[in-house]
Parts: sequence; structure tokens; C-alpha cells
Amino acid sequence: MHQPRRYALGRPNEATHPDSIRAALAEFFSTFIFVFAGEGSILAITKMYGEATDLRAGTLVAVALAHAFSLFAAVASSINISGGHVNPAVTLGCLVGGRISLMRAIYYWIAQLLGAVVAALLLRLATDGMRPIGYRVTAGVGDWHAVILEIVMTFALVYTVYATAVDPKRGSLGTIAPLAIGLVVGANSLVGGPFDGAAMNPARAFGPALVGWRWKDHWIFWVGPLIGGAIAGIVYEFMVIPQEPPPPNTHQPLAPEDY
Amino acid sequence: MHQPRRYALGRPNEATHPDSIRAALAEFFSTFIFVFAGEGSILAITKMYGEATDLRAGTLVAVALAHAFSLFAAVASSINISGGHVNPAVTLGCLVGGRISLMRAIYYWIAQLLGAVVAALLLRLATDGMRPIGYRVTAGVGDWHAVILEIVMTFALVYTVYATAVDPKRGSLGTIAPLAIGLVVGANSLVGGPFDGAAMNPARAFGPALVGWRWKDHWIFWVGPLIGGAIAGIVYEFMVIPQEPPPPNTHQPLAPEDY
Amino acid sequence: MHQPRRYALGRPNEATHPDSIRAALAEFFSTFIFVFAGEGSILAITKMYGEATDLRAGTLVAVALAHAFSLFAAVASSINISGGHVNPAVTLGCLVGGRISLMRAIYYWIAQLLGAVVAALLLRLATDGMRPIGYRVTAGVGDWHAVILEIVMTFALVYTVYATAVDPKRGSLGTIAPLAIGLVVGANSLVGGPFDGAAMNPARAFGPALVGWRWKDHWIFWVGPLIGGAIAGIVYEFMVIPQEPPPPNTHQPLAPEDY
Amino acid sequence: MHQPRRYALGRPNEATHPDSIRAALAEFFSTFIFVFAGEGSILAITKMYGEATDLRAGTLVAVALAHAFSLFAAVASSINISGGHVNPAVTLGCLVGGRISLMRAIYYWIAQLLGAVVAALLLRLATDGMRPIGYRVTAGVGDWHAVILEIVMTFALVYTVYATAVDPKRGSLGTIAPLAIGLVVGANSLVGGPFDGAAMNPARAFGPALVGWRWKDHWIFWVGPLIGGAIAGIVYEFMVIPQEPPPPNTHQPLAPEDY
Repeated sequence: MHQPRRYALGRPNEATHPDSIRAALAEFFSTFIFVFAGEGSILAITKMYGEATDLRAGTLVAVALAHAFSLFAAVASSINISGGHVNPAVTLGCLVGGRISLMRAIYYWIAQLLGAVVAALLLRLATDGMRPIGYRVTAGVGDWHAVILEIVMTFALVYTVYATAVDPKRGSLGTIAPLAIGLVVGANSLVGGPFDGAAMNPARAFGPALVGWRWKDHWIFWVGPLIGGAIAGIVYEFMVIPQEPPPPNTHQPLAPEDY
Repeated sequence: MHQPRRYALGRPNEATHPDSIRAALAEFFSTFIFVFAGEGSILAITKMYGEATDLRAGTLVAVALAHAFSLFAAVASSINISGGHVNPAVTLGCLVGGRISLMRAIYYWIAQLLGAVVAALLLRLATDGMRPIGYRVTAGVGDWHAVILEIVMTFALVYTVYATAVDPKRGSLGTIAPLAIGLVVGANSLVGGPFDGAAMNPARAFGPALVGWRWKDHWIFWVGPLIGGAIAGIVYEFMVIPQEPPPPNTHQPLAPEDY
Repeated sequence: MHQPRRYALGRPNEATHPDSIRAALAEFFSTFIFVFAGEGSILAITKMYGEATDLRAGTLVAVALAHAFSLFAAVASSINISGGHVNPAVTLGCLVGGRISLMRAIYYWIAQLLGAVVAALLLRLATDGMRPIGYRVTAGVGDWHAVILEIVMTFALVYTVYATAVDPKRGSLGTIAPLAIGLVVGANSLVGGPFDGAAMNPARAFGPALVGWRWKDHWIFWVGPLIGGAIAGIVYEFMVIPQEPPPPNTHQPLAPEDY
Repeated sequence: MHQPRRYALGRPNEATHPDSIRAALAEFFSTFIFVFAGEGSILAITKMYGEATDLRAGTLVAVALAHAFSLFAAVASSINISGGHVNPAVTLGCLVGGRISLMRAIYYWIAQLLGAVVAALLLRLATDGMRPIGYRVTAGVGDWHAVILEIVMTFALVYTVYATAVDPKRGSLGTIAPLAIGLVVGANSLVGGPFDGAAMNPARAFGPALVGWRWKDHWIFWVGPLIGGAIAGIVYEFMVIPQEPPPPNTHQPLAPEDY
């Protein structure tokens, strides 16, 4: 039977291995680029219409495209170095599927959160002090409904990550994996936007929450995405990836693109 | 003369072969992701504007992008496993062209319909009971005009599937096949939206119809897409694919990407 | 010195060679798909707002995306068979650059015009008789200004075609050529839309003009694109493609992707 | 230790080498295509709404898409010839990272500025004298805030260029590099638009400024992008690219795609 690569804690020297440091740096910069553009697009809407504006179709499209396009570039910029997670929920999905060690996951989480915080800080600086807005549940939507929505949307995201960027049989599809990952987030932003903002990413929610000091409903954007990402990792790894023994002559070393 | 692969009922063990099960699972999850985002974007519009809102350019773009982007991700996520149909009309087009066995087609249809129903159910749950809306013909548009529209739009979709993902001579174009498939649906959503909603996919129509219990005009979204998909399969398979005998030394086993 | 392939009239049997017929069929179907979605998106706007509506940003985006996405799919569907022209101005650009024979160019032009006419006819049928609208110069814009605009926009299109799909050194960029071609048309639709509609393609203009019987300004959408396409073919073929002799051991037969 | 290629002034015959001339030509035409569509989309908005119009979500999306799509096509059209800079800030980032000689950088800068000026001139001609608008800082936004914004947005752009198009380990990701580059500019256009227009490119700002003779705030669109591009080049070249000695049997000649 196929055994996904499993690591209890990672290689002994993983903490100081240059590849681990480079991978964490790549996660930091890519999350920075994504959160700057994503949250920045919301501040751009605020600049045009004021903070009390209702979400309309035009603003929804603008925000969804900013997230989709910048996440695509951020994943493309890091996929060959770190696997292009840019999202703690993706990292969790890869951890539960045995595609990444716990040590490396912790590095990634720290790098992702730092990247998001620095992005929110620079946005506040560049906009002369506008408070980042981040995510909250829309009036009239229940907390647990928002949790379910985040679970399903993040499931779609991490399932796409697994199918296009992790599956060893992905073949030439890997070339467009970053685009599929960016655009599925764009699609779900058009779904979840009017209900809860559609985070699908705890780091994306955390940076603006910290810098804007807005914590209302914040737990939802951790609980939902992490559950959704973990389910996707388990479902894809154990149900969809073919359960065949690898041929005996295949023992490749751990390559970066294998996560 | 070139003989497309023809199967009367499929291989004897197809029903229990792990590849068939994995392929059906991939169709289930990809159709789930697509219908959740597609129908979800319509519920998002409803959340912002109320159900009685007229379609305007901004809402049309939002709904078209949600369909295009999520279908791209859904096809990319399943193309190497199941062929990335995500649509009973695509499966019919591949069946009439002899690219898939009847047994496998039946698995796919069941998986696609189930995926669409589960997506609609989860949407209803996550939105605290909003009734999925699905498709109906706009007031003032005749039923048979809608059928013609669905035929032509689905023809464009399945022709694109054949040319970019099925044609054995597609070459490196296969890498961007999922994007071409997603975006041609996006383009035709911008055409058919104000007339009949632009389904091009019976599963996309069926899930919301069942969960929202709205059956008015529902037959149109089966008849039109299935006719359009079948025509495209026949036209491409028998008119466009080169009618040359394969070289005698080429007998590849059935690979997943061959459908 | 580099000699581009030059054909006076084409191979003797070109008229009846199956490859020529398949290529013309591919041009017919791809132009059909493109014109149906492009013109259809304009009829969809008309359906929502009435024919006298002014172009606004939302409608401009909807129409531009319909053209961009459908042209991408249409070019992707034919690039390996016919070169993916889908446009008489692209065919002319390839003819003046010596990349296609005059005989083949004539086949393509006929196929493109027929595809556009059939698309417009089916649109008229599916919309219960709406007259296709096609292109005209906006009030206040001079005819020759529109000609210049069409020349420059079509130059950008055919330059992109040459650089990404024709240049023998394009390498792996060829994989995304259809997307670059579709999206540069989308970009220029956002430029030319409010001035003259932004055709960049005589077939795209001709089909709706014939079926809607609207000939005002029609000549502009032949003269401008054909001049722009020819200039781009000459500029790229004789200024940008490296003028080096091919290595003596390279004599590949004419492959479809070489046009 | 890894040594990036470093050139003091370039090869002795670089000024007259056909490859240098072709590369400069490619930069000229690609920058022309990009600036024509980018600035043209702003004139299209002006044509529809008048010059005094406030930026709204719909116009912001139209302008962002025109920039994203045309930059994608422009980079795709030149990446195999010149590296696809289309932007003096990208060229500076490649210069400080040692990826291009100073001589070649100067050629590129001249070609980029000329391409932008010719695009603005042809826009003025085709629109019967509309004054190009270019960039200025929005009322209420401080100059230095705009500088910071341009620095961060251009950092994201040039980081993406390095990661997807320059990094020797980019692998098959290079195929979608032009799209990532175009779309990250689209994303940041949705961020910076309401604050300072979001240039990220001195040539893009210069051509319309010269032809429209509007110099207010112009320095910002040189200082910000050049600083941001230089930082990205240094960060990626010296922090992210693996610092390992190349294997001794690898001495490839300078290929165009190596910049």
C-alpha cells in the first residue's frame, strides 16, 4: 500500500538547513504580497466610497480579482521553493496528509503570519493611517453558518492545491497550479464576500486584525479554514491519490516541489 | 481509417476497478466545488440585492467569473484522474465520440449529480436556509429559443474540451485545457445570462433545482446541453480529428488522460 | 540570411489535401465560437438595458471579457490544426510574413467569414430575432481616427500572435499563446470600446453586419484591421525574428503548428 | 558561493550586436503595446464619463484589467527575446541583481521610454487630440505616502519577475511567468488606483506625462518604482536564490532567456 511521506518532527538539521530558511523566506514574501494586495483592495474601496459602504457587485468583483490575481502571483513565486502555501490552512492540509514535517509547518506558519502583519503595517503607513478592515461576519449571518462557509470554501482551495500542486501524478498540470489556486479563491470570494468576507486563510485575517485591532468574529477565520484545509488534505491524500506501492526503483530524495 | 476507441459497456471489471472509483470520486468533488461556487455566487447576489433584483452588468460579470474560475479549478483538479468532465453533457460528448465506455459514463453522471446536490445542500446550510435559485428562462424568452441557446453554448464548451483535452494531437495545449474550458463557460455566461441563465450543464442545474425545489423550465437545461454536447462530440471526433490509421507500433494501454 | 517560408500559391494539392480541409474546418468552428460569444455578449447587454443604452464601465468589462475569454478558447481549439487565426487580419499578417500560402489564406478567409455569419444567424434565431449590432463609430469620433485606432489595436494583436505563436524561437511560451492572444484583445476592447467598439477583426464585424444588415462605417473594420495586421506581420517577420541561417541539418516538413 | 552574473558595462560589441538591437526593439514594441492599452483604457473611461469623473469600482476594474491583460501579452511577446522587462524598474532590479549589463540596461530604458512616448502620441492622434492623463496623486494623499505605496507595489511586481522569470530554478513555472507578472500588476492596480493611480513603471508614467504635458507629482512615479524594483532585485538575488556553487560541468553561454 502507498505510504505518504510521514515525518514526526522533521529532519534533525531542518531548523538550520538553508533550504528551510529559504522556504520560510519565500512564504514570508509571498504572504506579504498577497495580503498587501488583498487587504489593500478593501482599503481602496473604502477610500472611494467610505467605510460604511455596502458591498455591491462592482466592489465585490474588484476585491475578488485583487485576491485571485495576487494569490496567483504569490503562489507562482514560491511554489518551487516552499510549495507555495501562502496560507496556514494549506500548510495544515499538507501536514495532515504527511507531505510536510511538523517542524517545517511551524516555520511556515510563523513566516505566513509575519508576512501578513508586515503587509498590514505597510498598508497602514502608505495610506496615512487607515485602519485595516479584515474580516467580520455580515449582520444577519450566524457565526456557525460562517464557520461552515469557511470550511467548504477552504476545502475547495486545499483540494485544488492537492490535485494540481501536490499529487505526484499531476504531470504538466503543475504548470498552471498557481493559477488554479488563485482563481478558486477568486471564485469563492464572489460567493462568501457578502456573507463573511471569504477569508479561507487565517494569516490573511490575522495581519489586518492585529494592525487594525479588530478582533470581532476573528476566531471564525481560524477555525473554519483550518478544519476545511485538514479535511481536504485527508480526503485527497487517502481517497483520491492512487493507493499503489511505488515501484521499488523509485527512491527520490525529498525535493522542494514535493513539499 | 481511424477508429476511435469504442466500448460497448466497458471492461468487465470496470465497476470495481480502483481507477474507476477514483475517477468517479474526482468527478464528485470537482462538480461539488464548481456548483458550490457557481450557485453560491448567485446566492451572494441575492444576499446583496434581494431575490427580485434584475440582472445588471456588474452582477452578470460577478456570476460569470465565479463560474469560469471555479470550473477551471475543478477541471484542473480532475483532468488527470477522470478527464475533468464535471458536466454530464461533456461526458455524453465523450461517450458518443467513443472516448469513454457507457459504464464509466454512468458512474460519472451519478457522481456529477451527487456532487451538485451535496453542493446545493451545503449552500442551503451555510446560508441559513436560502433556497438555491438555479436556472429558469427569463420572461419574454421562448422555451425553444432557450433550448437553441443552450445547444450552441454547450457545443462551444464541448468542442473546446475535445480540441484542448481529448484530441490526441493536442500536445502542450493540454496544459491550458482546463483554463480554456473554464473561460469559454465564463464567456457564454455573459451571453446567455440575461436570456436563460446559461447553464450548459445539467448537473449544475439539477442540484439547485432539487434542493431549492424549483422545476420550472428544468427540462430545458437537460435537453439543450445534452444535444449540444453530443453534436460537438460527433463533429470533432469524426470531422476534425485526423482520419489516419495509427502507426502499427502504437498500442498504448488506456491511460486516464485518454478518458 | 534567414528566409521565411514563402509560397506563391501553395502546394499543388493543397485544395484537396485533408490537412487543408481540417484547417479550414477548425477556422470555421473557432470563428463561430468567438463571434457567437462576442456578439452575443452585446445582445445580452441590449437585452438587459435596451438598444439605446450608453456604454458604461460595467457593460464595457462584460463585453471585453466575453471577447477575451472566447477568443482564448477559440484560438486554443484551433492552434494545433490551423494555427488559430480566427481572424482575417491575422491570416493576412501571416501571409505577408510568408508563413502561409495564398491558397491557404483564401480558404481561411472563407471559413472565418462563414463561421461569423453562421454565428450571427444562430444568435438571431436563439434570441427570437434580435438584430445583431456589430460595430459602428461612436458619434463624435472621426472615421479616420477610428481607422488609426483599429490599425494600432490590430497591430498589437498580430504582433502578439507572431511573438507567441509563430516565432520559431517562442519555445514553451507557445503553451500560453492562445491566452495572450485572447487577453490582448480583451485589453484593447477596454480601450477602443467607447470610440468604435474595437473590432480588430473583419470577420467579427462582417457576420453581424450581414445578418443585422447594418453597413454604416463597415469599411473601417476591414481597412483598419487589415492594415494593422499586415504591418505587424512585416515588422515582426523582418525586424524581430533573428536573421540567421537555419542550421543545415534542420529540414522539418511543414507541420500544422508552423502555419 | 553562488556568483550572479555581473557585468560592469557589458560585452565590448554589445552596442552593435544584433541580439542587443533585437532585444531593444522587443522592449520598444512591448512597452508600446502595454502603454497604448493601459493609458488608452483611462482615455476610454474619460470618453464615457468625462474627465472630472470620480474613480468607481467599475472603472477601477476596467482600468486594472486593461493593464493586467496587455502587460501579460507584452511580457509574453518579449520574454524570450529581451527578458520581457517592459518597465525601467524591472530593468533596474535586474541590473542591481547582476542579471543584465549596464549597457543593455541603458538600451532597454531608452527603448521603453520611446515605446511609451510613441504609444501616447498615437493615442492622442487616434482620439482626435485627447490629452493623455497619466498619473497624479489623489487629493488628500501625501506625496511620501504615494512613494511608499509605489515602492511596495513595485517590489511585489519585481519580486514576481525574479521568482517566475529570472530564478534559474524556476523550471516549468517560466511558462506562466508573463501571466503572473501581468496579473500582479492588475491586483495592485486595484489597490493603488484610488490613491495614486498605481503606476509601478516610470515609462508607463512618462509617455503620457510628456504627450499630455502633465508633470505634477511626476517624480513620484520614478522614485517609488525604481526604489521598489531595486529592493526586490537585491532581496531575491541575495536572499532567496540558493547560494550554492553551480556544478562544474555547467557553463552555458548567455542565452536570451537568462537576460
